[in-house]
Amino acid sequence: MRYHHNGFKPGDPDVSSAALDHRRVGDPLPDTVDVLIAGSGPAGLCLAAQLAGVPGIRTMVVEPKLGPMEKGQADGISVRSMEMFQAFGFGEKVQRESMWINETTFWAAGKETSLDRVARVQDVPDGTSEMPHVLINQARVHDMFLDIMRNSPSRLEPDYGFKVADLIIDATATEYPVTVTLENTSPGREGQTTTVRANYVIGCDGARSNVRSAIGGALHGDAAHQAWGVIDLLAVTDFPDWRMKSFVRSEEDGILMVLPREGGHLVRLYVEMDKLSDNERAADRGMNADDIIAKAQRIFRPFKLDVKEVVWWSIYEIGHRLTDKFDDVPESQMAIRSPRVMLAGDACHTHSPKAGQGMNVSMGDAFNMGWKLISVLTGRANPSLLHSYSGERRAAAKDLVEFDHKWARVVGARGQDDATDGLPRVAREFVNNLPFTCGLTIQYEPSALTGAATHQALASGFDIGKRFHSAPVIRLADAKPMQLGHAIDADARFRLFVFAPANDTCAPGGAVASLCDWLENDPASPVRRHTAAGEDVDSVIDTRVVFQQDFRTLDFATMPTLLRPSVGRYGLCDYEKVFCADHKLDQDIFDARAIDRAAGCMVIVRPDQYVGHVLALSARDDLAAYFAAILRPRG
Amino acid sequence: MRYHHNGFKPGDPDVSSAALDHRRVGDPLPDTVDVLIAGSGPAGLCLAAQLAGVPGIRTMVVEPKLGPMEKGQADGISVRSMEMFQAFGFGEKVQRESMWINETTFWAAGKETSLDRVARVQDVPDGTSEMPHVLINQARVHDMFLDIMRNSPSRLEPDYGFKVADLIIDATATEYPVTVTLENTSPGREGQTTTVRANYVIGCDGARSNVRSAIGGALHGDAAHQAWGVIDLLAVTDFPDWRMKSFVRSEEDGILMVLPREGGHLVRLYVEMDKLSDNERAADRGMNADDIIAKAQRIFRPFKLDVKEVVWWSIYEIGHRLTDKFDDVPESQMAIRSPRVMLAGDACHTHSPKAGQGMNVSMGDAFNMGWKLISVLTGRANPSLLHSYSGERRAAAKDLVEFDHKWARVVGARGQDDATDGLPRVAREFVNNLPFTCGLTIQYEPSALTGAATHQALASGFDIGKRFHSAPVIRLADAKPMQLGHAIDADARFRLFVFAPANDTCAPGGAVASLCDWLENDPASPVRRHTAAGEDVDSVIDTRVVFQQDFRTLDFATMPTLLRPSVGRYGLCDYEKVFCADHKLDQDIFDARAIDRAAGCMVIVRPDQYVGHVLALSARDDLAAYFAAILRPRG
Repeated sequence: MRYHHNGFKPGDPDVSSAALDHRRVGDPLPDTVDVLIAGSGPAGLCLAAQLAGVPGIRTMVVEPKLGPMEKGQADGISVRSMEMFQAFGFGEKVQRESMWINETTFWAAGKETSLDRVARVQDVPDGTSEMPHVLINQARVHDMFLDIMRNSPSRLEPDYGFKVADLIIDATATEYPVTVTLENTSPGREGQTTTVRANYVIGCDGARSNVRSAIGGALHGDAAHQAWGVIDLLAVTDFPDWRMKSFVRSEEDGILMVLPREGGHLVRLYVEMDKLSDNERAADRGMNADDIIAKAQRIFRPFKLDVKEVVWWSIYEIGHRLTDKFDDVPESQMAIRSPRVMLAGDACHTHSPKAGQGMNVSMGDAFNMGWKLISVLTGRANPSLLHSYSGERRAAAKDLVEFDHKWARVVGARGQDDATDGLPRVAREFVNNLPFTCGLTIQYEPSALTGAATHQALASGFDIGKRFHSAPVIRLADAKPMQLGHAIDADARFRLFVFAPANDTCAPGGAVASLCDWLENDPASPVRRHTAAGEDVDSVIDTRVVFQQDFRTLDFATMPTLLRPSVGRYGLCDYEKVFCADHKLDQDIFDARAIDRAAGCMVIVRPDQYVGHVLALSARDDLAAYFAAILRPRG
Repeated sequence: MRYHHNGFKPGDPDVSSAALDHRRVGDPLPDTVDVLIAGSGPAGLCLAAQLAGVPGIRTMVVEPKLGPMEKGQADGISVRSMEMFQAFGFGEKVQRESMWINETTFWAAGKETSLDRVARVQDVPDGTSEMPHVLINQARVHDMFLDIMRNSPSRLEPDYGFKVADLIIDATATEYPVTVTLENTSPGREGQTTTVRANYVIGCDGARSNVRSAIGGALHGDAAHQAWGVIDLLAVTDFPDWRMKSFVRSEEDGILMVLPREGGHLVRLYVEMDKLSDNERAADRGMNADDIIAKAQRIFRPFKLDVKEVVWWSIYEIGHRLTDKFDDVPESQMAIRSPRVMLAGDACHTHSPKAGQGMNVSMGDAFNMGWKLISVLTGRANPSLLHSYSGERRAAAKDLVEFDHKWARVVGARGQDDATDGLPRVAREFVNNLPFTCGLTIQYEPSALTGAATHQALASGFDIGKRFHSAPVIRLADAKPMQLGHAIDADARFRLFVFAPANDTCAPGGAVASLCDWLENDPASPVRRHTAAGEDVDSVIDTRVVFQQDFRTLDFATMPTLLRPSVGRYGLCDYEKVFCADHKLDQDIFDARAIDRAAGCMVIVRPDQYVGHVLALSARDDLAAYFAAILRPRG
């Protein structure tokens, strides 16, 4: 954490000084806002937490419920989301509080009413990420984002008791073109409406999104005509794997999944319930928690399940649905106008809970959108950048829906005998799908934001279009062993990681020193071109260098000034730009990520932690062109 | 973290439900309390945080200042204190927020006014601890303890604006024998007094402790007649090691130490100032921040030091002082009465700040005292247990004062040429002293609490009387890779770690199963003997077993019931008692701690994380005798 750079401030460094004019809880609704977020679920709050960090952006979050969520809904946090949490600053907190999923086991009914463990696999393969796969109550994830919001200068809190009823867009207006009708949901004021005008409206208002309806969107897809029960409970059982993620297949009563949860006792079960007829909804059957428990008890036989407390439950049917476009601009009009309304999370894609993807993909949407919206609202990028949101995230959601569809069939299929490799089919598919469930298969297609793989071989461990895969390094100035990826904060900045060629110690005239000098001083450099006068040199593009040498052989004081920039009101030196390979490891970062040791390379990492490009150290024109296609000239 | 065991509770698991009758800020002072703590420094708050966790213990903390500390004073957190922080639950938070000291460098004036780095060493040797050595503002450490207090059922907050003026002890009284005179320090009420009666009074009120005076104690020792300046500042400098811990020795202007601090910019300097004459105090010289800076600038030559903000400063002289006894009971009366008043921290020992020990030893005092006081107040132990506090901590403080004395001479000495090993003397001594500065040399002498080293060879990596040295393991029930030491919470419970012999899978009749059966069921077992009816089986002595096998080869469901206890109002299973060696490591815990693989062993760990004893698995009588000497029979 970097703080005190504008002078010493006592107290919790996560708490910013409050802006003088921030809205207080209970203040009247504003007439206009920059961004109105409909819904305070994972997508809405993840977006709000990003916007709250930027002074000058006025954000409002409306939520029809009357207060924050306390339990239920999603619980799976993929390693990818944990990496994102790290950038938000609460990765450690979630690691401490959550259930780690380390091993997944598979049980099947044997002969004579026995139930046997037929397979077990490590849940996240070694080397996948520095982060674990964890489970935690969705409400606690909300709390983490709410804390960031309330600790921000704007002290942002959701406006509970309001929902977006409708909106209209005035395509001719340049200021606050979206007029939103809010409907009051609080007792005694139900149905009262009020109007707010916004520059941008983000629909994070769930599968029945009014924002989506208002822009003419609809979810398309199919349902599996199969009811499932989901239940969070405290129970006593002799089932041996109550603290492992487990798939349990009975002979005649169907299947269930065990998902152990935070705190050491809570468990979630997904239980296969009744087949539904066409056009029948699960809710029509009138099933309740007792039905779920009774079914689970049958599937678990001969093990006993003695339920002590039902914390939350729901009955649902699997549906895989997707909307055509995640914003208000039809394909035909993309050249002439930019999005004013965008959708995220369940408002634009729904899937089965069992793959544990919903909350993760929703937050992924918001993390993709956040930096783009901030870049546009702060004048760093043109509004056309926002088109890329729907483009990138709809493709990712489509892959997810297809994966989820396939996986639901595997989990639900009957008569799966052991194959030649000794693993039942569900276990084999589970292993094959691990990169997907880890959230690591998303790879954005080549575009203005994602370079072509021309120079991918310079760092084949950093896949262009995929998330930046962190590895350990040593920070030169203070010799701290740390993850390079943890240098990335959720602050809407691009990172340019420069990996030095062998023997390059940053001596003047060498490749790294020359590059840094060009980046800092040449009018053609993207750092110069896209950073406004008066901004810190790293406020748009944050350059960091990793050397191959042991840290004891390099001298921080001789680094180029770009790597020792003066920041904040005092012009204090930022000491956190230079890293070295960690020579104590079996594989240092150059080996672990297959970086060309002779040539070195540049790796552009987008603000959402995705690799934007891999380039040769000499490819200055390509580097400039990459940023010129995204950011406006401001230097 | 284990929670929800008494039913699901929404929200932050670190926040307990408030007790109905807890005192509120602003409520009148109570007439009587169980424990009155004088002072809200590291010792007072560390103690209060422990007591706050125990329902039924009524604690009051009085602090003459009018609010919590914001800056200044101590900043060094030894790895030992970090291990303790982990037990309190804020180890991760401090790791994230603090400055890690990874490397220490040594600079000396060369010829012709140059200053050269003459040596550098890794600060904490590999394998010392799973925790780093960090620096952070003492005020933030206070905040961590204050958070625990205000999140406890009693919502404990210090009573600011009061100091202990005097106290008297009625040795004949059994209830509230200590009558304390509190003096108001808040504006307009200065000097007003009020009286509180307490069962115990703990003087954490600093070097000028009124509590110490009231029991007739005095600090004895000497002063070095050398003034030092300490200053926290934000500055711009070309000194290359501004983010390393550095010792800098000039040719003619004396020495200084650089201690980089949290946030990436803040730095503390300790600067050698003037020699003092006999009986002169540093304060008499009238030196200020400008004098410290001017001296530092001379020592740093030819490097520049451009100070932008002075955050805090002080002038002090080194003194090493110790009081004769840390409680109110003279040696001659120890057999006939138990302590009612105890001292901790600077109230009973003072030393130089430069070894970074003061805050750590103060918290160590409070961690040693906390479980003893809780054990007595809850009826688990006889009051005579409290005698061990002064016995153990005075010996530790005496070693510290002597070390500190020696180290101050090394740091202050002139004309230290390089020795044959190439390291200057100060660097060589620094390396030799690392175990001390890490806080790891404290070893309690054999006593009722610390067994004789008769069976030390069964686990030579767990030194009896020293702190329990954690190592990685896999938790069986959920396959979680974790530190065994992190199973220890700051909850006043003893841990009994059972290390299984090779091939013991806990099968019935084997050594581990038999031991567990005896512990749970035999009237002679200490678990039975010292646990009251109605308490969870692990509420006094918490047994955990570590097996040598890979976790995939063992079955949790077949473990003895002692290792799968029913806890809380629902009788839910505690799944966190059984561990396995981590076979992925080069050295598993049996290798790393030199545990006898053939014989296995028992390791008793005290509530303050010190190893109480190492015993053979068969030594049931010795085990029972150890606990019988500390705890009362309650079974």
